[in-house]
Amino acid sequence: MTRQDAPDLLGVAVVGAGRMGADHVRRIERVISGARVVAVADVDEERARAAAALAGGCSAHTAPEAAMGAPGVDAVLIASPGPAHEATLLEALARDVPVLCEKPLTPDAASALRVVEAEARLGHRRVQVGFMRRYDPEYGRLRALLTGGGLGRALMLHCVHRNAATPPGYTAPMMISDSVVHEIDTARWLLDQEIAAVQVVRPAPSGTAPEGLDDPQLVLLETAGGVVVDVEIFVNCGFGYQVRCEVVGERGTARVGDDHGPFVNAAGRWGGAIPADFRVRFEEAYDREVQAWVDATRRGDTTGPGAWDGYAAAAVCEAALQAQATGGRTRVEMAPRPALYGAEKDGGGRADG
Amino acid sequence: MTRQDAPDLLGVAVVGAGRMGADHVRRIERVISGARVVAVADVDEERARAAAALAGGCSAHTAPEAAMGAPGVDAVLIASPGPAHEATLLEALARDVPVLCEKPLTPDAASALRVVEAEARLGHRRVQVGFMRRYDPEYGRLRALLTGGGLGRALMLHCVHRNAATPPGYTAPMMISDSVVHEIDTARWLLDQEIAAVQVVRPAPSGTAPEGLDDPQLVLLETAGGVVVDVEIFVNCGFGYQVRCEVVGERGTARVGDDHGPFVNAAGRWGGAIPADFRVRFEEAYDREVQAWVDATRRGDTTGPGAWDGYAAAAVCEAALQAQATGGRTRVEMAPRPALYGAEKDGGGRADG
Amino acid sequence: MTRQDAPDLLGVAVVGAGRMGADHVRRIERVISGARVVAVADVDEERARAAAALAGGCSAHTAPEAAMGAPGVDAVLIASPGPAHEATLLEALARDVPVLCEKPLTPDAASALRVVEAEARLGHRRVQVGFMRRYDPEYGRLRALLTGGGLGRALMLHCVHRNAATPPGYTAPMMISDSVVHEIDTARWLLDQEIAAVQVVRPAPSGTAPEGLDDPQLVLLETAGGVVVDVEIFVNCGFGYQVRCEVVGERGTARVGDDHGPFVNAAGRWGGAIPADFRVRFEEAYDREVQAWVDATRRGDTTGPGAWDGYAAAAVCEAALQAQATGGRTRVEMAPRPALYGAEKDGGGRADG
Amino acid sequence: MTRQDAPDLLGVAVVGAGRMGADHVRRIERVISGARVVAVADVDEERARAAAALAGGCSAHTAPEAAMGAPGVDAVLIASPGPAHEATLLEALARDVPVLCEKPLTPDAASALRVVEAEARLGHRRVQVGFMRRYDPEYGRLRALLTGGGLGRALMLHCVHRNAATPPGYTAPMMISDSVVHEIDTARWLLDQEIAAVQVVRPAPSGTAPEGLDDPQLVLLETAGGVVVDVEIFVNCGFGYQVRCEVVGERGTARVGDDHGPFVNAAGRWGGAIPADFRVRFEEAYDREVQAWVDATRRGDTTGPGAWDGYAAAAVCEAALQAQATGGRTRVEMAPRPALYGAEKDGGGRADG
Repeated sequence: MTRQDAPDLLGVAVVGAGRMGADHVRRIERVISGARVVAVADVDEERARAAAALAGGCSAHTAPEAAMGAPGVDAVLIASPGPAHEATLLEALARDVPVLCEKPLTPDAASALRVVEAEARLGHRRVQVGFMRRYDPEYGRLRALLTGGGLGRALMLHCVHRNAATPPGYTAPMMISDSVVHEIDTARWLLDQEIAAVQVVRPAPSGTAPEGLDDPQLVLLETAGGVVVDVEIFVNCGFGYQVRCEVVGERGTARVGDDHGPFVNAAGRWGGAIPADFRVRFEEAYDREVQAWVDATRRGDTTGPGAWDGYAAAAVCEAALQAQATGGRTRVEMAPRPALYGAEKDGGGRADG
Repeated sequence: MTRQDAPDLLGVAVVGAGRMGADHVRRIERVISGARVVAVADVDEERARAAAALAGGCSAHTAPEAAMGAPGVDAVLIASPGPAHEATLLEALARDVPVLCEKPLTPDAASALRVVEAEARLGHRRVQVGFMRRYDPEYGRLRALLTGGGLGRALMLHCVHRNAATPPGYTAPMMISDSVVHEIDTARWLLDQEIAAVQVVRPAPSGTAPEGLDDPQLVLLETAGGVVVDVEIFVNCGFGYQVRCEVVGERGTARVGDDHGPFVNAAGRWGGAIPADFRVRFEEAYDREVQAWVDATRRGDTTGPGAWDGYAAAAVCEAALQAQATGGRTRVEMAPRPALYGAEKDGGGRADG
Repeated sequence: MTRQDAPDLLGVAVVGAGRMGADHVRRIERVISGARVVAVADVDEERARAAAALAGGCSAHTAPEAAMGAPGVDAVLIASPGPAHEATLLEALARDVPVLCEKPLTPDAASALRVVEAEARLGHRRVQVGFMRRYDPEYGRLRALLTGGGLGRALMLHCVHRNAATPPGYTAPMMISDSVVHEIDTARWLLDQEIAAVQVVRPAPSGTAPEGLDDPQLVLLETAGGVVVDVEIFVNCGFGYQVRCEVVGERGTARVGDDHGPFVNAAGRWGGAIPADFRVRFEEAYDREVQAWVDATRRGDTTGPGAWDGYAAAAVCEAALQAQATGGRTRVEMAPRPALYGAEKDGGGRADG
Repeated sequence: MTRQDAPDLLGVAVVGAGRMGADHVRRIERVISGARVVAVADVDEERARAAAALAGGCSAHTAPEAAMGAPGVDAVLIASPGPAHEATLLEALARDVPVLCEKPLTPDAASALRVVEAEARLGHRRVQVGFMRRYDPEYGRLRALLTGGGLGRALMLHCVHRNAATPPGYTAPMMISDSVVHEIDTARWLLDQEIAAVQVVRPAPSGTAPEGLDDPQLVLLETAGGVVVDVEIFVNCGFGYQVRCEVVGERGTARVGDDHGPFVNAAGRWGGAIPADFRVRFEEAYDREVQAWVDATRRGDTTGPGAWDGYAAAAVCEAALQAQATGGRTRVEMAPRPALYGAEKDGGGRADG
C-alpha cells in the first residue's frame, strides 16, 4: 500500500476518549473518508492511550491544548463531558481551528452565548454542534417533505422520545437537557423558527421509574411562528429506544420513527424489533454527521448545526427547566442573533407564539 | 314467510328523521337483529314519512310524544338535534321507557344533570348515550389490551381527530362539543377515570381553515388519576377522516387508527386510502352499538355509556370551552355522582390531577 | 314487546348442528336481521335439541327432510358434513327451497355437477355456497380496487394461507380441499375467470408438521386468461391464522391480510397480535354472508357464490389433488357451463393458460 | 492538512468508467475510508479521464492492464461490461491482486468456471463479487433472524423484484441474468444451499410491457435442501423499484422490503414513496460493500461473495434461461466445488430438491 503522495487527509484531534470519543476515533479511522486521528486527549491518560491505539501513529495527551497543538492537527472533535466544552471551544476558536462539538455545546445558555460571541468576533463559523439527527436519512426525508411544500405550512409537531431505562444518577432535569434537547433542535431545524415558549405537564409518574423521577412528562414548545410542538419524554418505557416525529401540515402529515426492520410473524404476533439503544438507531446518522464535517472542513467550510443552534437549544432548555419546576408556561429569553448566523425567521405565522 | 308466532321484536320509536335518524331506521330494519321501527317522529312531517316508509307498518308523527305513545313502542331512539334531547329524554324517563340517545346527551352540563337526576330518581338506568366508539372493534381491542394489564397502568394518551373539511357554520366551540367530545368519552372509558382539568393550546391557524376558525388546536385533558391526554383536533386537514389513539402505559404502548384497508403499491407510492367520512370509519361501530342496545333492552337491561357519561362529557366540554376562550388551565366542575352510577375511581394515581 | 303484526321473518331450517351449524343458529337469532331459526336437524338428536334451544319455538329433528318439512320453513342452511350435502341439496331443489350451503358444495366434482344439473333443470338459482371470504370487508375492498381499474388488468396473485396447527387426522389432500379451496374460489371471484391448470410444488417438510404430512406446499393455479396464482399453504405454521392475498396488476398491486389490530410497542417489539383462528378473522364475513343470503331470499333472489362456483371449486380441487400426488402440471377438466350461470369469460388474456 | 506520514491507503485501479464505475470512484474518494483511486481504465479515453478527475493524482488509461500496472495500485475494482470481466479477472489473478468485480462475475457458467479454476490454482481467494444485497442492512437483519434460529429451519422464500420500466433493448433473458440473478444469490446466501432446479411460469403478459417481452414472470427455484423459492420478476410495473423477500421458517416468517420512508397522510391516502431506482434503494449497501472490501483487503483477507458464488449464480442463470425458453423444470448442472470454497451444504432437508 502507498505511503508516498497520499491525498491530503484531515488531521483530527479528539478531545475526550469516553464512549462517544472512542467511537468517533473508530468512525474516523474505519468508517468514513478523508480524515485520520492524529491526537487524542483525555483526563484519564490510560483512556487517552487506549483510544489513540485505535489509530496508527496517533499521540495521546491529558490536556486538550496539548492534543490541539500536536503536529498534524487540522481540526478538533470535542467529546468530553459538557462542562469541559467551553474552555476547549474557546481555545479552538482562539486558534481558529474547525470544531465538531458533541451536544450540548455547553451546559447552560450563558456559557453557550460566550462561545457564540467568540465565534462572532472571529467573524466566520468554525463550530459544528453534534445534533446528529439532522444527518439521519429518515429525518432528512421528513424535512425534504416539509420544505418540498406538499404538506403545506407546518402547524404542529407530535414527538415521542422513549428510552428503555435510565442509568443511576439520572435526574428530571436531564430529561430536558440530555433528551428533549434533541427534539428542541429537531423542531428548530425542521421548522426554521426559534422556540418562544415552553410548558411541561407531568402525568402521575410510572411505577417503573426510579423513586423521585417523574417519568414520563409532556413538554410543549411554541415557536415564534406559532407552531405547537408536543414531546412525550419517557425515559423508562421499558421496551426499547424509540424516537418518533410527526409533522402536521396544512394539507398533510408525515411521520418517521416507529416500525423499522424486518416484518416478522412469530409466536402469535406480527411486527418487528425495537432497538435497545440510540447508537443502533442513529449509527448511520453519526457516520454521515462526521463525514459531512470532514468534507466541509476539507473544503474550508463550516456547515450543519452551529454555535447559534447550540446556544438556542441551551436557552430553550433553561426555559424548559424552569417550566418543569414551576408547571407554568415560560417564555424563552434569547440574546439577539449575531449577523454571522443569518436573519431571524418566524415562519410566517402569528407574531407572538 | 311466517307472520304467525314471530319472535318478540323490540318495537322502536325513532325521534328525529334527519341523516342519523334515517340511517338508524335502515339499520334496525335491515342490518341488526331483534328490533323493528314502529314509529318515527320529526318536526318535518315529510321527513318523518320518508323515514317511516323504510320500515313496514310504521307510523309517522311530528311530535316525539306521539311517536312514543304509538302502539307497539317498547323503546325510543333519539336522533333529533341536541337542544331537543332534554324534553324527549325526560318524557321517556317519565314513561320509564328505554332510550338510546345520540350524542350529545344534551348541549350543556346543567340540562344533562337534570336528565341524570331524573334517571336517578327513577332508580334504575334507562338511558344509553350514542358514544359509538365504545363499540368499534379496534377501540374494543385497545381497551382489552389496557385492561389486560400487559401495558401496565396508563400514563398518557395521544389522540388525533381529523376531518377533511368543515361544513358552513362550523365554529370553534364545535371543535370541542361535536368532535373532541368523542375523545373525552373515549378517555373516560379507556381509563375509567373522570377528567379533572382542561387546557387548550392554539397554534397559528391553517390557511386552509375558514376565516375566523383557529384550526387546528391541541386540547390537554388531565384525569383525576393524573393521566395526561393530548388531543389534536384538526377539522380542515384536507386529506380525509382519521381518528387515532395511542395509550402509553408503564410497560408498553398501543395504538389504533392510522393504516386501514388494502395495502396498495401504485404511482410511485405504497399505502392505502383514508376514508372521507366518519360513517365509513365507524359503520360497524354504529351497527354494534344499536345491536347491543336492542339486546340489552330485550333482556330488560341498560348497558353501555349512560346518562352519567353524557353529563360528564358535557361538564368537561364546558370546561374545555372556557379553556379554549381563555387559554388557561380550567378545572372541571362536576356534581357528585349519584349512587346509581357506581363509585368514583381515580385510577390509582395522584390525588390531584 | 310486540308479537302481533311482526314483520315477515324468513323461517330457516338449519341442517347440521355441529360447531358451524350451532354458530349459524346463534348468528341468525342474535346478530343478523330478518330471519329466525324454526327447525334444526342433526343425526345426533341431543345436538339438534341443544342448537334448537338457542332459538325460541324451534323444533329439533334427526332427518334433514323432517326439518325442511317443519311448519314455517322458508329456506335451508346446510352445515352438515360435506358427504351429506348432496342429498340435502337435491331434496331442497326438489322442494324449490332457497339454500345456503356451507363449503364444500359436495366433496367431489361429479356430485357437485349433479347439483348444478338439478338446479339448471329447475331453471333458476336457489343455491348459495358458503365461500364467506367474498363477504369479508377487506376482500371486498380488494376486489373493488381491481374492478375499479386503477391497478390495470390482473397478472398474478400471491396468496398465503397459514394455520397455527392441524387437528388429528388432518391429511395432505385436506390442504387442498379444506384450505386452498378458499383461494381457488377467491381467485375465480377476484379475476372472474376459470382456473385451467394446477401444479403443486413441495418443499422439504417442516419438522413441526405431523409425521407424514408434507407441510408447507406451494400450489400454482393458472387461469383461462393466463393469470398465475401462487398459494403458500402452511397448516402448521405455529404462530396463528393468517390469510394474505396480493393482486399484481399492470399498473399497481394491492394486498390484504397481514397487520390487523392495535399497533403495540412492548417487550422490545413493535407490532400486533395474529388471530389464533379463522372464526376470529372472518367473524364479520360470516355475519355479512348470512345477512346477504337472508336479504336476497326475502326479496326472492339468489345471489353470491352459487352451485356453479361450488362445482368449479370441486373440479379445480380434483385437479389439484392429482397434481399434488404426481408433482406434474394438471389441466382442470370442467363440464360446459349451463346458461343459467352466464357466459364464460377468459379475462382477455391468452387463449391457453 | 497533512501529507507526510499519511496512513497506508489502499490504491485502487477502477476498470470501467461507466455509470457504475464512476460512482465507485466517487464512493472511494468521498464516502468510504481507507482507499483511494490511483488509476482508471475505460475503452473510452474521455470517460476514463472524466472519472480519474474525480480523484486527485489519478491516472487514466484505455487498457485494464495499463491501469492495473500503474504505480501505487494495490487492488482492482472491475465495473466494465460483463463480457470484458473474464480477461481482467484472469489478469488480476495472474498478478495475485485483490479484485472487487461487479456482478455478473462473467456472462456464462463456462467462463465463470475458468475464473474459479484460476483462483483455485492460485490457492487463495482474491475475488469478491458485487452482490451488494449481502451488505444491505435490512437483508443483513433478515439473515441474522434466520441464522439466529427463532424462525426455525427455512422452508420457503417468497421474493418480489419490480422495476418501474425497462430501457430500450431489454430482453426476456435479461430478466434472469440482470435481475433474478440477485434473488439467486440472495437465496444461496440466506439459505447456505445450492440451487438444484429451476422452473419459469409465464402469466399472460402485461399490456404495459414492450412488444415481445413477456413481463412479469414467476421463477421457481428449488435448493439442494428442498427449500422452494418463488420470485416474481416484473420489470415494467410502472410504480417504482421494489425488492421484497419473505422467509418462511418452521416457526415464523420474516420479510423485508415494502414500506420504507416517512409515513405520509395526504390527498386521501396514507403511506409513503417508492424509490424510482435501485441506486436509491441500495445506496447504503454499495457503500458498505466497498468499505468491507477495502477493509478486508487492507488486512490481507478476501471476504464476501466470491468467485464460486459468481459461478454458481451463472450456472443457475443458465438453467433458468433454459427453463424460461422451454417452460419445463430444469436441473442445475454444476461443477464440483473446489476445496478452496469450503464443503457443500444441503441445509439438512431432503437429498433431492
